[in-house]
Amino acid sequence: MGSPVHRVSLGDTWSRQMHPDIESERYMQSFDVERLTNILDGGAQNTALRRKVESIIHSYPEFSCKDNYFMTQNERYKAAMRRAFHIRLIARRLGWLEDGRELGYAYRALSGDVALNIHRVFVRALRSLGSEEQIAKWDPLCKNIQIIATYAQTELGHGTYLQGLETEATYDAATQEFVIHSPTLTATKWWPGDLGRSATHALVQAQLICSGARRGMHAFIVPIRSLQDHTPLPGIIIGDIGPKMDFDQTDNGFLQLNHVRVPRENMLSRFAQVLPDGTYVKLGTAQSNYLPMVVVRVELLSGEILPILQKACVIAMRYSVIRRQSRLRPSDPEAKVLDYQTQQQKLFPQLAISYAFHFLAVSLLEFFQHSYTAILNQDFSFLPELHALSTGMKAMMSEFCTQGAEMCRRACGGHGYSKLSGLPSLVTKLSASCTYEGENTVLYLQVARFLVKSYLQTQMSPGSTPQRSLSPSVAYLTAPDLARCPAQRAADFLCPELYTTAWAHVAVRLIKDSVQHLQTLTQSGADQHEAWNQTTVIHLQAAKVHCYYVTVKGFTEALEKLENEPAIQQVLKRLCDLHAIHGILTNSGDFLHDAFLSGAQVDMARTAYLDLLRLIRKDAILLTDAFDFTDQCLNSALGCYDGNVYERLFQWAQKSPTNTQENPAYEEYIRPLLQSWRSKL
Amino acid sequence: MGSPVHRVSLGDTWSRQMHPDIESERYMQSFDVERLTNILDGGAQNTALRRKVESIIHSYPEFSCKDNYFMTQNERYKAAMRRAFHIRLIARRLGWLEDGRELGYAYRALSGDVALNIHRVFVRALRSLGSEEQIAKWDPLCKNIQIIATYAQTELGHGTYLQGLETEATYDAATQEFVIHSPTLTATKWWPGDLGRSATHALVQAQLICSGARRGMHAFIVPIRSLQDHTPLPGIIIGDIGPKMDFDQTDNGFLQLNHVRVPRENMLSRFAQVLPDGTYVKLGTAQSNYLPMVVVRVELLSGEILPILQKACVIAMRYSVIRRQSRLRPSDPEAKVLDYQTQQQKLFPQLAISYAFHFLAVSLLEFFQHSYTAILNQDFSFLPELHALSTGMKAMMSEFCTQGAEMCRRACGGHGYSKLSGLPSLVTKLSASCTYEGENTVLYLQVARFLVKSYLQTQMSPGSTPQRSLSPSVAYLTAPDLARCPAQRAADFLCPELYTTAWAHVAVRLIKDSVQHLQTLTQSGADQHEAWNQTTVIHLQAAKVHCYYVTVKGFTEALEKLENEPAIQQVLKRLCDLHAIHGILTNSGDFLHDAFLSGAQVDMARTAYLDLLRLIRKDAILLTDAFDFTDQCLNSALGCYDGNVYERLFQWAQKSPTNTQENPAYEEYIRPLLQSWRSKL
Ligand SMILES: Cc1cc2nc3c(=O)[nH]c(=O)nc-3n(C[C@H](O)[C@H](O)[C@H](O)COP(=O)(O)OP(=O)(O)OC[C@H]3O[C@@H](n4cnc5c(N)ncnc54)[C@H](O)[C@@H]3O)c2cc1C
Ligand SMILES: Cc1cc2nc3c(=O)[nH]c(=O)nc-3n(C[C@H](O)[C@H](O)[C@H](O)COP(=O)(O)OP(=O)(O)OC[C@H]3O[C@@H](n4cnc5c(N)ncnc54)[C@H](O)[C@@H]3O)c2cc1C
Repeated sequence: MGSPVHRVSLGDTWSRQMHPDIESERYMQSFDVERLTNILDGGAQNTALRRKVESIIHSYPEFSCKDNYFMTQNERYKAAMRRAFHIRLIARRLGWLEDGRELGYAYRALSGDVALNIHRVFVRALRSLGSEEQIAKWDPLCKNIQIIATYAQTELGHGTYLQGLETEATYDAATQEFVIHSPTLTATKWWPGDLGRSATHALVQAQLICSGARRGMHAFIVPIRSLQDHTPLPGIIIGDIGPKMDFDQTDNGFLQLNHVRVPRENMLSRFAQVLPDGTYVKLGTAQSNYLPMVVVRVELLSGEILPILQKACVIAMRYSVIRRQSRLRPSDPEAKVLDYQTQQQKLFPQLAISYAFHFLAVSLLEFFQHSYTAILNQDFSFLPELHALSTGMKAMMSEFCTQGAEMCRRACGGHGYSKLSGLPSLVTKLSASCTYEGENTVLYLQVARFLVKSYLQTQMSPGSTPQRSLSPSVAYLTAPDLARCPAQRAADFLCPELYTTAWAHVAVRLIKDSVQHLQTLTQSGADQHEAWNQTTVIHLQAAKVHCYYVTVKGFTEALEKLENEPAIQQVLKRLCDLHAIHGILTNSGDFLHDAFLSGAQVDMARTAYLDLLRLIRKDAILLTDAFDFTDQCLNSALGCYDGNVYERLFQWAQKSPTNTQENPAYEEYIRPLLQSWRSKL
Repeated sequence: MGSPVHRVSLGDTWSRQMHPDIESERYMQSFDVERLTNILDGGAQNTALRRKVESIIHSYPEFSCKDNYFMTQNERYKAAMRRAFHIRLIARRLGWLEDGRELGYAYRALSGDVALNIHRVFVRALRSLGSEEQIAKWDPLCKNIQIIATYAQTELGHGTYLQGLETEATYDAATQEFVIHSPTLTATKWWPGDLGRSATHALVQAQLICSGARRGMHAFIVPIRSLQDHTPLPGIIIGDIGPKMDFDQTDNGFLQLNHVRVPRENMLSRFAQVLPDGTYVKLGTAQSNYLPMVVVRVELLSGEILPILQKACVIAMRYSVIRRQSRLRPSDPEAKVLDYQTQQQKLFPQLAISYAFHFLAVSLLEFFQHSYTAILNQDFSFLPELHALSTGMKAMMSEFCTQGAEMCRRACGGHGYSKLSGLPSLVTKLSASCTYEGENTVLYLQVARFLVKSYLQTQMSPGSTPQRSLSPSVAYLTAPDLARCPAQRAADFLCPELYTTAWAHVAVRLIKDSVQHLQTLTQSGADQHEAWNQTTVIHLQAAKVHCYYVTVKGFTEALEKLENEPAIQQVLKRLCDLHAIHGILTNSGDFLHDAFLSGAQVDMARTAYLDLLRLIRKDAILLTDAFDFTDQCLNSALGCYDGNVYERLFQWAQKSPTNTQENPAYEEYIRPLLQSWRSKL
């Protein structure tokens, strides 16, 4: 069981025999793959535990995802619910805790293809916004699945602009109840996961109205389906929003409330309360209500978004050493497509961000865990930084991962378009992450506001409190800056100090530029809101470069901590270099703009970049093996560990309903078509 | 029926009432929308004919696509076959010709959601590669659907590298037959449309072996299914390749041939023949066999690829004036999202390429029609230019349209992820076009080879024959060049002369640069193939910039012809300017590299760009209305002409099988889950 082959393989006929073209990629190992896996897992014990969980999960046929690609939305939903059911049986039997590592690994093994994921979001929101008594009451109900809960925030008419939510919660002091109501069609809750067909309770975000005053968005626990027979409760209209680009397994739903009454205790009240007489008491800041979104966003990065890109890399990389197409030289056999420079350029930057984002997500999680407890205890000092970081990283990671996965998909040519490759669904899942939990443009603009504010802080008199309290992620705004990059040859670009400084330089310049444009407009008489809107394209550019800087900086810092692992450090440094330089080349205009880089230096960077592609080539398969995804979890005819691509593609296709069911068009259309000419004779 | 409302609308409850937020966009018309539609259609008579065909098509319930989003692959296939059947009935009844405009408009109205599309590719191939007798024999069979044919080129193991195709056609002089055979698993034909469940005949591309010699890829007509009962013929193993990212309606299939015999006459023999005794006679060039791909590629651009992006633009633009989200000023009502600068930046460049590519596709089609006849008559002089242009434009258009449609989809926030918006399927359809009919990277590299060759031609002594015979699309390689852009203020960037020259300058520089890198490597001893591979990333960059130049140049030329339509010329010129400048900004590094532009000039370009966004804003809806897609054809809950978005989204969702069928998981999983805690008490 120790060998990777036995551990990760599908165990079908072809698993027994390694394809020589992938075997040869694993002969020479310039670093210890197992050790790298341990680092990614955060320790060898974690790796061991994860593998144990995976082997348990994969031993149950109930968890198999292999027929996913052939299923309808209803079938996918049922299968996901089957998994949700069985995982709870197993967790109970094996004593896995609700927030324990085992369950986390189990979800990873199931690629999130489980129902009741938003039930978990509800729990996060409850713990963030609920009082201790409320948590004590509802948390166990959730844990034991005595209720199934969802997080219902978005409406048909509003997602981004939460102040615009129309659902109302009007306090009735006479009965000490809230009356929850959807006053319009656009107030219909729309999108919440697990709502369409599963949930019995919803955390409804609604405008609180008490003692005649509107108090903004607050969260209310509302029972929506009968615990006896699952029918909608009185006043509730509820259903599924229908087919989506992906997430067939999730019943995203809609919900209309017609004067539904819930007791006063059902308003989550850690940061705000309504007293029995209708007095409103505020305990947190205006932002506290957004806390659940921060929590969910941070967990999303390493829990959902990143693994999808990593899988896409594994599949595309493995296929690219099996796929032989064209000849490099007329006399040679056909080349593995991974030996083409353009193929390397497609895949290696994606591999690099897979690692860059891993280290970033880990450090963000650490920072989050540190600040979350403080926030729950009403210390909000970390919130702006936490918000700006989580927002920016969510936007950047979802954008880059989506682009990257699509690049991996296309790198597999025609077969990448087959669902059996696994790649289409990875791409369409990731695309959603650019929108849910905050639409990316809107998020970047929030980062931009933070940057403008931070920049203005730096312009205060040096040493003043505002300047000293600059958040760590923007401390570089006050660091000494160079006017010109000192690089003199390609190899100079392999210096983390050099490229980190270069990214900082460009970020500072663009932030400054964006502030100046804003100021010029307001000084010329535009009102501040109009001025903001007219400069948002510029702000967006600055925010994106800032975020890229954060990823480069984060990757270099993570590398420094690997000094006891020189071989791994070396191979990862190449990816870090590639990540930094690839970004410089794709944004070269920003670096050339003020002559920080010269054209000749950009060419040096390009030379360094092309050299790196060549160097990374020999470790490419090992670097993807290190993610240690099982074949079951990849669920790809192209991506299995053994490399037997064509056999699997052929055999999997045979199981398609298009082959196992009769031709539904023959009698009615094809035969009459083919024979209609006879009537013409 | 004259008013657009009646003409294009769905005719449901909501069509009667225009949403005021979209109505207001149509009050002030700075140009005549109808006239622009006529221009796009190539004349008012065409517009009239198209609308007549559309009203016929939409009057038959058989053609309705409205339940598409709820169907399984089998159901989609059956519905597409139903449409293929009925369209032929109607065509016969109304006397529509096989290649007439009416049928073209009918396919447009059906958004290509019809079976037997590859049957039409077969016909193209037959006419390109068949002798006159072969055409006379098979063309009528195809026209009357006495046979259903497919184009079977790609194999499990080979798509790009046609020389690597493994299927063999061995000539047996004794019987005057070819023996068609798949010698390996990877020789299995894989992907051909209409093959999986429909076709009775296949045009099989196979390696010709005659008199013991291998003669390369040739095309053979092979009967594969019984015309009596549709069962596979002896020696034929055939089926469907299963689920794909899109194109559920098409039965892409696989085909294995076990020593299947076809008569000598079944080899298409316009450009090559096998005489009865096995003598091989070559009539065309090595490239002639690729002719069908050129034909199909050219038709693809305006027939399939571009309309998809245009539809995405229509949907996203209309939704963006209905969607109100956040406030521009605290005191204002919520703003239409199209009033946000970032939203304009998302959508207007896509609108601009929708027009740029339209004019390009038209002129390419003209050039094609001109040269095709010559080629069929063995005059191959236009072939290199035709090949380079069609290859480059296919790669660029499919890439930009895919990116653009995804941008439109995301611009619709959460609702853009619902299939009911129509956008997901537009995106996933377009993604395929980056791969089929030639994988884009491979195509760009073919353009690059053409550019290298053309550049070397320019280096010959001036006036020599090779220099004089430079293809028109690369004539700019010898045009006088400026070292610095003369722009002194933002408005200077609104000069077509200025930006066309700028694009030409950068293209020339990059082509030169790529040739120099290639030469440096070979001079330093690398073999030429290795040198090519090691510079392909650089060549790719040059090829892309060349293609962009072609689009800018083509758009400016098309505008010049509109001098009698000043209002339309003005509004389209803004799109042309935007297209050129947006490209400069996204590739600013290429323009700054040799200081052709200064940083200050890039800022001017940005100012011009932001001003253009503002100017285009007021015409945005009209510019998309001009594409004149019917609501039926858009099939989008977000994109209807009347703007009644939320009502439709809500009502369409009710029809989803997730709402009309029982909860498949309740009895088995949800109830036991919810009640299992009882057993724990
Ligand atoms: C798969 C999926 C799952 C989801 N799950 C849930 C769930 O469980 N619970 C839940 O409550 N919700 C859920 N949602 C909803 C999701 O949170 C929202 O769709 C998301 O927040 C985006 O908001 P929106 O749809 O209002 O986009 P919009 O804000 O309407 O965006 C449309 C366009 O307007 C632009 N725009 C909007 N405001 C501004 C501005 N101020 N400045 C500039 N541009 C602007 C955007 O950039 C975008 O281009 C889900 C969505 C999806 C796709
Ligand atoms: C929806 C759809 C419909 C189709 N319909 C048909 C049909 O009707 N009939 C038919 O015959 N076929 C059809 N095809 C097949 C299609 O034509 C091929 O998939 C396409 O030509 C790409 O070839 P490939 O799959 O071999 O890609 P590959 O060549 O395997 O590409 C994989 C990767 O290798 C790279 N690569 C390959 N060669 C080189 C090189 N020399 N230099 C650098 N990089 C290289 C590519 O850039 C790519 O990144 C269809 C495909 C799709 C997706």
